[in-house]
Amino acid sequence: MTYVRNTWYVAAWSHEIAVDQPLATRVLNEPIVMWRDSTGRLAALADRCLHRLAPLSLGRCQGETLRCRYHGWLYDHAGRLIEIPGQAQMPASGLQVRVYPVVERYGWVWVWIGEPARANAELIPPLVGIGHPDYEFDYGQLDYAAEARLITDNLLDLSHVSFLHTESFRMSEIWARARPKLTEQERGIRSERWVRNEGPMGELNATNRVDTYFRCDFFIPGVLLMAARAYPVGTAAALSDAQPPQFSSMEEGFTTQAVTPMTDRTARYFYMMGWPRGRVDQASRDATRVIYEKGFAEDQRMIEAQQRSIDASPAARFMSSSADQGVVLFNRLVEKLARQELAQ
Amino acid sequence: MTYVRNTWYVAAWSHEIAVDQPLATRVLNEPIVMWRDSTGRLAALADRCLHRLAPLSLGRCQGETLRCRYHGWLYDHAGRLIEIPGQAQMPASGLQVRVYPVVERYGWVWVWIGEPARANAELIPPLVGIGHPDYEFDYGQLDYAAEARLITDNLLDLSHVSFLHTESFRMSEIWARARPKLTEQERGIRSERWVRNEGPMGELNATNRVDTYFRCDFFIPGVLLMAARAYPVGTAAALSDAQPPQFSSMEEGFTTQAVTPMTDRTARYFYMMGWPRGRVDQASRDATRVIYEKGFAEDQRMIEAQQRSIDASPAARFMSSSADQGVVLFNRLVEKLARQELAQ
Amino acid sequence: MTYVRNTWYVAAWSHEIAVDQPLATRVLNEPIVMWRDSTGRLAALADRCLHRLAPLSLGRCQGETLRCRYHGWLYDHAGRLIEIPGQAQMPASGLQVRVYPVVERYGWVWVWIGEPARANAELIPPLVGIGHPDYEFDYGQLDYAAEARLITDNLLDLSHVSFLHTESFRMSEIWARARPKLTEQERGIRSERWVRNEGPMGELNATNRVDTYFRCDFFIPGVLLMAARAYPVGTAAALSDAQPPQFSSMEEGFTTQAVTPMTDRTARYFYMMGWPRGRVDQASRDATRVIYEKGFAEDQRMIEAQQRSIDASPAARFMSSSADQGVVLFNRLVEKLARQELAQ
Repeated sequence: MTYVRNTWYVAAWSHEIAVDQPLATRVLNEPIVMWRDSTGRLAALADRCLHRLAPLSLGRCQGETLRCRYHGWLYDHAGRLIEIPGQAQMPASGLQVRVYPVVERYGWVWVWIGEPARANAELIPPLVGIGHPDYEFDYGQLDYAAEARLITDNLLDLSHVSFLHTESFRMSEIWARARPKLTEQERGIRSERWVRNEGPMGELNATNRVDTYFRCDFFIPGVLLMAARAYPVGTAAALSDAQPPQFSSMEEGFTTQAVTPMTDRTARYFYMMGWPRGRVDQASRDATRVIYEKGFAEDQRMIEAQQRSIDASPAARFMSSSADQGVVLFNRLVEKLARQELAQ
Repeated sequence: MTYVRNTWYVAAWSHEIAVDQPLATRVLNEPIVMWRDSTGRLAALADRCLHRLAPLSLGRCQGETLRCRYHGWLYDHAGRLIEIPGQAQMPASGLQVRVYPVVERYGWVWVWIGEPARANAELIPPLVGIGHPDYEFDYGQLDYAAEARLITDNLLDLSHVSFLHTESFRMSEIWARARPKLTEQERGIRSERWVRNEGPMGELNATNRVDTYFRCDFFIPGVLLMAARAYPVGTAAALSDAQPPQFSSMEEGFTTQAVTPMTDRTARYFYMMGWPRGRVDQASRDATRVIYEKGFAEDQRMIEAQQRSIDASPAARFMSSSADQGVVLFNRLVEKLARQELAQ
Repeated sequence: MTYVRNTWYVAAWSHEIAVDQPLATRVLNEPIVMWRDSTGRLAALADRCLHRLAPLSLGRCQGETLRCRYHGWLYDHAGRLIEIPGQAQMPASGLQVRVYPVVERYGWVWVWIGEPARANAELIPPLVGIGHPDYEFDYGQLDYAAEARLITDNLLDLSHVSFLHTESFRMSEIWARARPKLTEQERGIRSERWVRNEGPMGELNATNRVDTYFRCDFFIPGVLLMAARAYPVGTAAALSDAQPPQFSSMEEGFTTQAVTPMTDRTARYFYMMGWPRGRVDQASRDATRVIYEKGFAEDQRMIEAQQRSIDASPAARFMSSSADQGVVLFNRLVEKLARQELAQ
């Protein structure tokens, strides 16, 4: 499958990268070391020493530099080779390991995989995440034995909620049968829907019925902000299914997620559940988290099985239904941006 | 290696497939889901939903239909797509997942992997198995990390018994030194031999000597019926090594086995030991089973090592001896049938 | 990477191969069975029966022969097929599995992988090992998930000691900054160096300073003899860094090591630490062994990570520094000998 390269990928949690403790990851098959020097400055470099390709993530931070633990070659935060122990003269000028532009935002470390000159922090999607003064967060991550696109497809077609999430979100078939309103954005799509006269999430066949408005903003390369809010039954009809006023306050909770392709068959799934600061008790937060993580496990089991099935039948092709409109629009956008990259 | 496709493969035990509990397997690399609807009818389908290739074996049985657990696409027993949730109109007529002809016989589920139009239940070999009124059975199965052909080769050249089965069947070198009488059949071969003046199976150097007549009918694609019967010493000579009269009664026990290629390097080995109903006590049956299963473990250890050896030396070739006549005849038949398939 | 074939590889410890207990290994991807017959004579054969490629290492020793455990084919110590059970006539004359020339020396079994006619025991390098009357030995081995060349490169560039062995050998950066004197040999290189005014191995910042002379003889295909001896501070200067007299006595301990490529991504690392017989107490030997094995573990962790890094970035290339002179000289010798083999 195709992925956009000139974009920001979530590579780690900011809090994972302590001063002096390099962290290894992969994004789009590229091994990357992230490290924070003694001034707190973060850098992301290709995770292999120029000398013998030993991983720099096994190295030692020394002040504002990173030293390979194998033969001691020394690099600065820009990836420049600044010392070969015992060798007075450098073999050539301008030797450096590849450096990846890096930004910390929403509690995440974002790495730009494409051409460094095109890196533009304004392309980081408008999310709400850790560090926002008005919200507090629970969070976690999952490592998938499946490629990232299968996970974003899952998130873009929520018709699966009715059939797959029978032990977690426990919603009726209304999810599968209703089609959301989709709006294309420059680098993403917005999906909105009202669900009328249903019980709240996780309470199938509940008697306390509500109208619920859901909105999901989904951005390149695979990050989303999803919020829901319950209203008295009748609100959707009264609004003719339009977006409720002041919905942006997200006062009843929301979730911010990112899917990062690590290799052709592995991906990391980062998620946080946001709550208005100080207004939701821990028990409620924990109960919601339990539902979400049960749902994530249902997704993972299915998607990893789907990956194995794809690999067992390489000639088989996908077929789309009207429920895949979001998937189709988003993947068309990915293809378009990827084609533009190749043409540049 | 070559395998015949227009033939019946043993895919599972009938009792493994309960109503409403789909079962996944592979035959010749093809992922297959077997399921039994609320009427008890069995179906075998390609194990991937048309939509996103999710395995249907994770799905839910609903009456006479099977629903994919991912986005809820619904199939009937013939593999026809009969509902896409939320979509009034089907994308095209005649959409279906591949259906495999399936027959239950001898306690096994037989699946036809080749052209469905050629499926003919009369091609299921004449065995004796679970469900026969005159016999009762012990049974089991093994999963091999080796390709099926290595296992059928093993069963077709019993000269290995003397050298490999020293802790189980414990027969003298007479097995290796005598050559069986082989008779070609339309879709198999028959192997017969008398072993004169030996102890019974598992009792090397026993004093209670007998003449034993062995017969093995071996059928495409890799199923067999093997029976043995002991006679007073001298019987073989008196019969000039001909088949004893009334041998078909199999009254002293027999074994029915099937080897199914799952992938290029995995196979499933199904076996049952048959006994005249009500005439053999459980202790004797258990003692025989212990010997057999010890022998099967000896086979598995050797054959998996053989597979690793083959894979480590891809240029190395087999060499045959006169003991391989059965192997050669059977594999020649496989090649002939496979060539005929290609020519059709 | 390239390896020399017409050379002796260490395949096992002599003591590993008991009479009647065949042992399997691989050298340069070739499966080999080593076995000792009832007379104590050692043989090394291709580890696959001519018949069906079953590993002969699962076979049974019978006097001066080895019998395949599958169908009983019988071989002598020269690999000649001398019996097919039940077959009076051999299929052809001169049938045999490949035999590898084999020599036992220094406690090791050496196997010649190239053309047998070129095998020459005089090409076994001049080491000191188990069996020498003047020394006693501690020993061990490690299995690497990395190719052998990465390990020999490690041993040929000891500048890594300062950076990698911070928990074991604990030497200062003098190791990395000083360059050894290198002398090319016909089938190896000698590396010598004085380290002036340093603490002994494992005692960073020690006050009991010495001048230490190190010498390492490194031979094709990847075996070495390394010795060190401490002298009063000032000795190196007094000798103008020349080799100290009578150094060959190795009276303060030495190490003999061999690296054998098993497959493209696995290697076995054999090591022994030698001591003047009866002159070093067990506690000192144990303390040294602990330091060495901690150091070997540091090497293994780094080299296996290096291998994974290489495999993750197949387009990336090594870059050499002046510290790699030994690596470059040795690998150039390997390339030269390998080219000569192809030309022959």
